[in-house]
Amino acid sequence: MTLGSVPVLITSPLEDRLVQEIADTDPRLNVLHEPDLLPAPAYHADHALPVVDTPEQLARWQALLAEAEVLFDFGPLALAESLATLPNLRWIQATSAGVGQFARRIGLTRSQVIVTTASGVHARPLAEFILMSMLMFVKGAFHLAAEQRAHHWQRYAGEEIAGKVVGIIGVGRIGQEIARTLRGLDARIVGAVRDPGDRRPEDLYLDRLLSMDQLDTMLADLDFLVLCCPHTSQTDGLISAARIAALKPGAVLINVARGAVVDEPAMIVALQSGHLRGAALDVFAHEPLPQDSPLWDMPNVLISPHSASTAASENQKIVDLFRDNLRRYLDGHPLRNVLDKDLLY
Amino acid sequence: MTLGSVPVLITSPLEDRLVQEIADTDPRLNVLHEPDLLPAPAYHADHALPVVDTPEQLARWQALLAEAEVLFDFGPLALAESLATLPNLRWIQATSAGVGQFARRIGLTRSQVIVTTASGVHARPLAEFILMSMLMFVKGAFHLAAEQRAHHWQRYAGEEIAGKVVGIIGVGRIGQEIARTLRGLDARIVGAVRDPGDRRPEDLYLDRLLSMDQLDTMLADLDFLVLCCPHTSQTDGLISAARIAALKPGAVLINVARGAVVDEPAMIVALQSGHLRGAALDVFAHEPLPQDSPLWDMPNVLISPHSASTAASENQKIVDLFRDNLRRYLDGHPLRNVLDKDLLY
Repeated sequence: MTLGSVPVLITSPLEDRLVQEIADTDPRLNVLHEPDLLPAPAYHADHALPVVDTPEQLARWQALLAEAEVLFDFGPLALAESLATLPNLRWIQATSAGVGQFARRIGLTRSQVIVTTASGVHARPLAEFILMSMLMFVKGAFHLAAEQRAHHWQRYAGEEIAGKVVGIIGVGRIGQEIARTLRGLDARIVGAVRDPGDRRPEDLYLDRLLSMDQLDTMLADLDFLVLCCPHTSQTDGLISAARIAALKPGAVLINVARGAVVDEPAMIVALQSGHLRGAALDVFAHEPLPQDSPLWDMPNVLISPHSASTAASENQKIVDLFRDNLRRYLDGHPLRNVLDKDLLY
Repeated sequence: MTLGSVPVLITSPLEDRLVQEIADTDPRLNVLHEPDLLPAPAYHADHALPVVDTPEQLARWQALLAEAEVLFDFGPLALAESLATLPNLRWIQATSAGVGQFARRIGLTRSQVIVTTASGVHARPLAEFILMSMLMFVKGAFHLAAEQRAHHWQRYAGEEIAGKVVGIIGVGRIGQEIARTLRGLDARIVGAVRDPGDRRPEDLYLDRLLSMDQLDTMLADLDFLVLCCPHTSQTDGLISAARIAALKPGAVLINVARGAVVDEPAMIVALQSGHLRGAALDVFAHEPLPQDSPLWDMPNVLISPHSASTAASENQKIVDLFRDNLRRYLDGHPLRNVLDKDLLY
C-alpha cells in the first residue's frame, strides 16, 4: 500500500472534527467526504443515510462507491443493494449495533464484504434508559406525574430495586452494562443467551445464566423483563402471547431490542388488562409508532422514539472504534465487532 | 433488671409481626402496644403520630408515657412537649433521620433523654429517587412525556451521566449512597460537609471533598446540585438567591433535605427563567405544598410529596436498627445513631 492508497468513504453525517480524526489515523488512508451529498443531522449523532434526489447525485455516489475500499456507514438506501457487488469494497463500519437483518436484506451476508457493527457504543445510554425506566416504576413516577397534574399531595410508599428479579434476554454489551449497574442496587439478575457455553454468570454480572431454551423457566419469577437481544430468526416473535401470559402478574416489560421480538398486540392486551404493570418501549413493530396506536395514551407506558441509544457523545465513540479498526485493517489484524453472517450479530 | 422490667412503648403504627420481633429481642423487655390508640397507616411505613381525641385517650397516653423507659417514635404530638420531663423516659428511637429540629422544638435537646435517629434506613430509597431524577433529566424524560401526550415521534439525542459534575451537600449515609451509585456511571462527584476532618474523598465515594465554607467555589461547575444535608442553623437558607444565581446555567437542583435549606421563591424564579434547567423536589418550605404554588405546573419540575424516602421495606429496617439498639441499651453499650443535640443530626 502506498500513501493515501486506501479510499475510505464517509456516507452519513459526521462532524468535520471527527472526519479529520479519521484522516489523521494513518497516512495510508484517503478519506472521501463530500458533505453536500449528506443530509443535515436532525440531532446529535443522527446517522441518517443519504437520499439521492438527482441523476447528478446518483452519478457522484456511484463513482464514490465504486472507488471506496472502506465505508463509514451504508450509504444511500437507494444503492444499498449494490454494495454486495461493488468492485473495490472490502469493509463497512456500521454506526449501529443491530444491523444484522439489514445486512441480510441487502445481500451483504452472502458477500465477501466485512461488516463491523457499533456494538458497545450504545451500551451505556441504553443501560441508563433501562435503569431510569426501572426506577420510574419502582418509585411510582407515573403515579407522581398524575398526582402533580392534579395538584394532589398524598404521601405514599414506593418500592426499591433491591430484591427485584430482573430477566435480561441477550447478555451482550448492553445486557452486561445494565446487569453491572443493577448489581450495585441489589437486584437479582437472571440472563438468557443463545449459548451460555462455559461462561459463568458472575463473569456477566449475573446471578444466574440460562440458555434461551430455558427461558420459560424464569418468566413467572420476573419483576422486570428486559429485552436487549439482537433480532434474529431465533428471537423474532420470541416474547409471544403465551410467554407474556406466563410472566408474573405485575411484571414490567422493557424493550430496547427490536419491536419484532415481541408480539405487540398481545403486549397491548396485557397492558390494558393490568397483567403487565407497565412497559418502557424504545422499539416497535412499526416505526414511527402509528398515530393511532393505543400505546401512546397508556398511563403505564413510556414511549421513546428509538432514541434511547442516542447520546451526544456517540459519534466520538464510534469514531474511536473506527480508528482502532482502521489501524487493525491496515496492519492485517482481525477487526473488532465483526458481524457474524449466520448469527446476524 | 428483672424479667420484663424495661417498658418499651410503641407510639406509631407498626405491623404486629414487627412488634413481636421487638418483644422477642430480650426477655427483659416489656413491650407496651395498644393498637386502638394508634392511627391506621395510610401507606406502608406511614409513621403518623397519634391524634388524641378524647379525655379517656389522653389519660391512657399519659399513663403509658409515664410508665415508659423507651419509646418507639415520639408519641402524640399534643403531648410532645411533655417528653422532656417524663419521670421514667430515658430514650426515644425515632423513625426518621431528620428529627433534630423537632427534638429541639419540643425541648428534648435540653433534656437528658437520648434520641436515636433512623439515619441510614432511608439512604437507599432516597439515592434511588435522586438517581431516577438525574436520569430523567439526562435522558430527556420530561421532553418524552410531552411528545407522548402529543403522539409525536421525533428522534433526538439524550445525554449521559458520564462526565456530569454532581455536587452533594451533606455526605452522610444518603450522600454516600448516591455517590457510590453515581461512581458506577462515571459522574464527577464533589461533596461538601460541615467539617471534612481527616476524611479522604475516596472513603466517601467522592472525587473531591470540601468544607461547607468552600461551597461557593464549586457552584459554577455543577450540572446537578443535590441537597441531602440535615436542617440545622448552618444549613437554614443555605441555598440562597445568590448561590442559585452562582450555579452553572442549566444546572438541576435536587432536594431531599428540607425545604428550609433553599430560598424557595428564588428557586422558582430561576426555574421560570430557565437559569435552572429543572428541579426534583421531595421537600418544600410548606408541606403539603400549597395548591397555588407555581411549582405544581412547571414542566421542568418533579414534585414528590415528601415520600422519596418511604419504601415498603422501611419498617423492617427500622425495627432491625431498634432491636440492635435495644440489645446495646440492655448491655450498657453505646447506642447507634444518637442525635447530637448541638449539631442536630
